[in-house]
Amino acid sequence: MALASRHLLGLNGVPKEDIQLILDTARTFREVLERPIKKVPTLQGKTIVNLFYENSTRTRISFELAQKRLSADTINFSTSTSSTKKGETFKDTVRNIEAMKVDMIVVRHQSAGVPHYLTRISNANIINAGDGLHEHPTQGLLDMYSINEKLGRLEGLNVCIVGDVAHSRVALSNIFGLKTMGANVSVCGPATMIPIGIEKLGVKVFHRIDDAIKNNDVLNVLRIQLERDAGRRIPSLREYHQFFGITTDRIKNHNPDILILHPGPINRGVEISSEAADGPYQIILDQVTNGVAVRMAVLYLLGTMH
Amino acid sequence: MALASRHLLGLNGVPKEDIQLILDTARTFREVLERPIKKVPTLQGKTIVNLFYENSTRTRISFELAQKRLSADTINFSTSTSSTKKGETFKDTVRNIEAMKVDMIVVRHQSAGVPHYLTRISNANIINAGDGLHEHPTQGLLDMYSINEKLGRLEGLNVCIVGDVAHSRVALSNIFGLKTMGANVSVCGPATMIPIGIEKLGVKVFHRIDDAIKNNDVLNVLRIQLERDAGRRIPSLREYHQFFGITTDRIKNHNPDILILHPGPINRGVEISSEAADGPYQIILDQVTNGVAVRMAVLYLLGTMH
Amino acid sequence: MALASRHLLGLNGVPKEDIQLILDTARTFREVLERPIKKVPTLQGKTIVNLFYENSTRTRISFELAQKRLSADTINFSTSTSSTKKGETFKDTVRNIEAMKVDMIVVRHQSAGVPHYLTRISNANIINAGDGLHEHPTQGLLDMYSINEKLGRLEGLNVCIVGDVAHSRVALSNIFGLKTMGANVSVCGPATMIPIGIEKLGVKVFHRIDDAIKNNDVLNVLRIQLERDAGRRIPSLREYHQFFGITTDRIKNHNPDILILHPGPINRGVEISSEAADGPYQIILDQVTNGVAVRMAVLYLLGTMH
Repeated sequence: MALASRHLLGLNGVPKEDIQLILDTARTFREVLERPIKKVPTLQGKTIVNLFYENSTRTRISFELAQKRLSADTINFSTSTSSTKKGETFKDTVRNIEAMKVDMIVVRHQSAGVPHYLTRISNANIINAGDGLHEHPTQGLLDMYSINEKLGRLEGLNVCIVGDVAHSRVALSNIFGLKTMGANVSVCGPATMIPIGIEKLGVKVFHRIDDAIKNNDVLNVLRIQLERDAGRRIPSLREYHQFFGITTDRIKNHNPDILILHPGPINRGVEISSEAADGPYQIILDQVTNGVAVRMAVLYLLGTMH
Repeated sequence: MALASRHLLGLNGVPKEDIQLILDTARTFREVLERPIKKVPTLQGKTIVNLFYENSTRTRISFELAQKRLSADTINFSTSTSSTKKGETFKDTVRNIEAMKVDMIVVRHQSAGVPHYLTRISNANIINAGDGLHEHPTQGLLDMYSINEKLGRLEGLNVCIVGDVAHSRVALSNIFGLKTMGANVSVCGPATMIPIGIEKLGVKVFHRIDDAIKNNDVLNVLRIQLERDAGRRIPSLREYHQFFGITTDRIKNHNPDILILHPGPINRGVEISSEAADGPYQIILDQVTNGVAVRMAVLYLLGTMH
Repeated sequence: MALASRHLLGLNGVPKEDIQLILDTARTFREVLERPIKKVPTLQGKTIVNLFYENSTRTRISFELAQKRLSADTINFSTSTSSTKKGETFKDTVRNIEAMKVDMIVVRHQSAGVPHYLTRISNANIINAGDGLHEHPTQGLLDMYSINEKLGRLEGLNVCIVGDVAHSRVALSNIFGLKTMGANVSVCGPATMIPIGIEKLGVKVFHRIDDAIKNNDVLNVLRIQLERDAGRRIPSLREYHQFFGITTDRIKNHNPDILILHPGPINRGVEISSEAADGPYQIILDQVTNGVAVRMAVLYLLGTMH
């Protein structure tokens, strides 16, 4: 079996069978991660460039580990050590990198659409590691993998995405992927953080966090991205926490069985209390582990296509 | 066969047979780059340090890819993440790195002569990846490889280097290498950018770009290095483009068969129009691909010497 | 034989047999470094993260080379390319990295105790590469290895540590390690740089450098760490050099057989004259070479524990 597309640009439009194939393949690699030797020779001799125009710890390291465990050769390109200030266009930079016979490019960029653009100017497989406010598909996939691992299914589950949905590529990838897999998706957050017309995507809106907790099986709690000016959309962090923060009290009172996800990094005491972030109902670090396995699956499936 | 020197510091004085050996070896590696598995075990267990005192995208990545495809272990040293601010002398830094039993050092430095200096304080093979205004030999080699690949020979060809010749290490490496291989080399640019007395190197000077196009088989168009203060040597970028910029009109009117090279990164609309940079007579991206093969050849020939 | 602890946090409390085992193992790897192929497959499939919160050239490269020569996969995390500004706690960053199934973490941090803390929140083997003013155990080990290699023993030797002992993690690791191995340890420096009560550690204090040279077999000369505000503890660098600087005159006059060590980077003309730093009685670059072997030994012994 093979994927329909040779790129992973987003989860919008990706067929159910393809998401299922990635999740099934990830399960195999998840087992490899428990072995003493966490390495397979699958992508030996392949070259992968990590083209990160935004700083990142976890996503970059997660991809790099996935690549090394598949025995690929990796090149890291980051704007801090490059000559991007020499006035070269982005297109010329990418065409140059591609001319060096690179097999795959993992790209993170502040502008939505950059990964799509790369597919037009490069022959490499393109994997979107986050583009502006558009999508972050491997995050969506690892969230689905983690939910399914814990609850045994995605179909029919009620999943609510909490926080600054309007400015979140994680939210969009979750919405597209979860709906394709048959989950019921809702969002919850202050009015300034919920996109107008989101109901058209088949997404329900909760205005009160207690209702969201009560009526869902899973909460995916987004981080308040202070570095992206999120503070301008809420009166104060304290007020945000008071009205929308996830706390152990709220969970106990409204739905002790709920499953909590968070893509990290966590702002403890803002979108989630420190106690809740370490509680028994959350699987935040499982998401991180699963992320490596999901990225190995995506790299493997794309890198071995004919 | 083996090279005469165990270092590659410049093309000045390198014998014709050695340049030919590098170009012939590069052809083998160029074929490796077309394979699905672009990797050979030749330099397994060898350690190569990339010592880059100037930021660089393409040269650093090109060398790093060449090293990984030869299965060498690579260490990147760049001033941005190092402790060079601790007051250590350059000599002590290098002697320290060398004491870690490094086999080869690829060095880029803003000062001419640094690679020569390294050969006196280190036992490693030294490869110059650009030193001040002196030389950039692997660029000269990849330019010659690319011309020969396209036109089938170097001997007797008329090659003109266009632009800020006086402040270009690419120009010097081209002049030395091409003349050794029997090409006729000329330069063209504003008077402020042509070194006084360059005729003594056996190099002809064109003052008008149309004459240069008319009377040559190949133009190697240098980039106007705005980051190196090139703007002070010309009245304006617009005027430079008007008098010396390569355009499709100029090519069509004066020599539609000419071959255009450019070492990159391109300033579109300055030394070359955007249309000409993407035209059928240029081989700019071939140069990039060939650069990896040429660097693999140099690393292989130096790394396996006895 | 195996080490008592699965971490290397410092040399304080490490049993004599463990130090001996590391030094003996390092001798084997020191021989590997003289081979054309300096690589062994020992840690293939293991993942090591270099978590450097302080910039570093030699220690980071030394560890990275040691890792690659053991065939481990390495990930470099440095604050300059990471998202540490996103407000995540240090604990969450580390737990995230560890959740990616990392086998070992090499950590350098400006705060004393960070490596100990890591052992409580991570399952990986932790190696301290320098924590604040606390310890730098692999430096202590490589110093002992180098002394033993040159003088054939550690027991009964008189070793004096010269300089800003009060603000040196190198000094502390030397004191703990050397005393465990049976050496007599002393210190020498201006009163502002000698910790009050250091005699309680069984350490003798010399106030005059000439006495220290006269009465010791080995001097370990610390660098004046100007980047750590050392200038505030001495009237001037010139005066420091006059009273405590190691010069060839002083060595010749007081003890021509003395062995000089320096952890680098050297401030020539401050703690040691340029002539003395290059003299026949010093083994500064041997220390660097031995450092790679000692780090290979530590990584090997910790990485293959059951």
